[in-house]
Amino acid sequence: MAFFELADFDNHEQVTFFTDEQTGLKSIVAIHDTTLGPAVGGCRMWNYASDDEAITDVLRLSRGMTYKNAVAGLAMGGGKSVIIGDARRDKTPALFRSFGRAIHSLGGRYYSAEDVGINTQDIMYAHEETPYMAGLEGKSGDPSPFTALGTFLGIKAAVKHQLGKDSLQGIRVAIQGLGHVGYHLCKHLHQAGATLIVTDLNQQALAKVAEEFNAVIVDLDAIYHQDVDVYAPCALGATVNDQTITQLKASIIAGCANNQLALPRHGDVLRDKGILYAPDYVINAGGIINVSFENDYCAKKSTEKVEQIYTTLLNIFKQADSQNVQTATVADQLARSIIDAKKATRE
Amino acid sequence: MAFFELADFDNHEQVTFFTDEQTGLKSIVAIHDTTLGPAVGGCRMWNYASDDEAITDVLRLSRGMTYKNAVAGLAMGGGKSVIIGDARRDKTPALFRSFGRAIHSLGGRYYSAEDVGINTQDIMYAHEETPYMAGLEGKSGDPSPFTALGTFLGIKAAVKHQLGKDSLQGIRVAIQGLGHVGYHLCKHLHQAGATLIVTDLNQQALAKVAEEFNAVIVDLDAIYHQDVDVYAPCALGATVNDQTITQLKASIIAGCANNQLALPRHGDVLRDKGILYAPDYVINAGGIINVSFENDYCAKKSTEKVEQIYTTLLNIFKQADSQNVQTATVADQLARSIIDAKKATRE
Repeated sequence: MAFFELADFDNHEQVTFFTDEQTGLKSIVAIHDTTLGPAVGGCRMWNYASDDEAITDVLRLSRGMTYKNAVAGLAMGGGKSVIIGDARRDKTPALFRSFGRAIHSLGGRYYSAEDVGINTQDIMYAHEETPYMAGLEGKSGDPSPFTALGTFLGIKAAVKHQLGKDSLQGIRVAIQGLGHVGYHLCKHLHQAGATLIVTDLNQQALAKVAEEFNAVIVDLDAIYHQDVDVYAPCALGATVNDQTITQLKASIIAGCANNQLALPRHGDVLRDKGILYAPDYVINAGGIINVSFENDYCAKKSTEKVEQIYTTLLNIFKQADSQNVQTATVADQLARSIIDAKKATRE
Repeated sequence: MAFFELADFDNHEQVTFFTDEQTGLKSIVAIHDTTLGPAVGGCRMWNYASDDEAITDVLRLSRGMTYKNAVAGLAMGGGKSVIIGDARRDKTPALFRSFGRAIHSLGGRYYSAEDVGINTQDIMYAHEETPYMAGLEGKSGDPSPFTALGTFLGIKAAVKHQLGKDSLQGIRVAIQGLGHVGYHLCKHLHQAGATLIVTDLNQQALAKVAEEFNAVIVDLDAIYHQDVDVYAPCALGATVNDQTITQLKASIIAGCANNQLALPRHGDVLRDKGILYAPDYVINAGGIINVSFENDYCAKKSTEKVEQIYTTLLNIFKQADSQNVQTATVADQLARSIIDAKKATRE
């Protein structure tokens, strides 16, 4: 077993495996980089088929948080945690208190929060044992509206850069997924005059946006080949792949889903086809930006910071053009340059 | 890669992988069990051929410390750490400071100390960054005389049980290895009237004990088949193996080396042959007992605690006879019962 040499290890500062016999806790906490501040990233509860899968997942997500937090201009490093188990079956208050004690033992180098399989109640149990939890009830609250705002502004930046338009009036957007974020995004887009084409498994959610925002409903598989300006993936990851790229008529991909590109090389394919891609972790940073204001919460400051996503993305688009590389590469370079600059001031 | 499912994982509470790009630190800290108190165990620096080897080593050693500290009656849990690197080439003050910061980030759940490849100076560098270091200069000091005292008393207990003698007068002991502990052990044995047969690679060390304690020198390979009462392994591990057991004329194995049995089943072979084995981690606990008194150091208290090794071993020998199992099994049972009793009072 190689560990430090794993492809995904990528110089993680600290990776900790925790168990608690009494509560059945099995958890991995990955702290990728704390140059900019304590590592912040959610906890995912998942019934991984193997430790291997759990390790790969937590390492990739943790590294991703370093990049996301850096480009969002936050004084936070990157980290992530996973609890191995079935979120429908294995949850107990004692399990999350035990997880809280584990997090606490790291002394504030890592702050956890909700992610897949974890809800606010779980976080509250963990918070009984440690202050190092973010996304608590009654603090910064639901991050979805902020993620939606950032995504909306990201779409505006992409339309500005790709189509030369300051307004979304008449712009056609295909939205894949109507969760909390998708709904709020539709609202912003509708108010800005855009035409909406939507899909989801949830018929109620579809009916709601059809009625409120005059959205046109299409089948799940039909969303890719709609005659639109913007394709906005807001649900699953890896929807930009060899199968879907050939179907796309949109000249912009800009949505709030995580890990939109199936493989890094798909970013090059998009560039070669002249499709502008808004890097996922840049455009969907509104939620983590809002969480960063959790202590001493101020919605106005949070909103102002989220609004910077517009400028950040415009700069990334311009850089990508002038360097003739894919936009995700520019975002990664930006993250590394911010971290390196901070390191330079320390040494 | 399975991790939680590794045979050696054995319910470790916490295993942490640390790196520091700047200093090149690669370290693993294993905390096996903190039921009895903070985990205490040394740090080993070794040029492991693979991460796999390092992980196996640190997990086994860490679990061993839980058992050792429990049977020694200490309010300390079990842990261990490794630094991956060449102790002759890769040491820098910055590396050990970085290691110190890593240990510090665990918040006192683990205390480190010297082990193979690490010296007091290294520990002092680490100590600049954390109070969680044991075995510092000017505190409890060199643990070797205490390990030697415990081993000497362990030999007395074995002679009492196996040969029915309270005195070592005329008892023949073959000592393999004349390091710090071996030398002090020879001194005790000589003063008690034992006859010494010794071997080592170091000619100076041999000459010294020959002169001071009238020891007879034999070749490295000849130590096993000496006509003695006691074989005292005080150097390498795994010297009790299929090759050596057939050569032994001694009816007692009692020395200070770690991991004396090549495999657990060799303990059964010894029992079947009527050879009494003093479990290594019980008889060699004098050093860690002395370290446990490091804060507010008192040599008298430390000595009294080391002296309990005599009674502990006598009890283990009797239990092994009455249960008809090997002595190492009884020691392990004793460790677990101490930990379980403590857990019961907590719940």
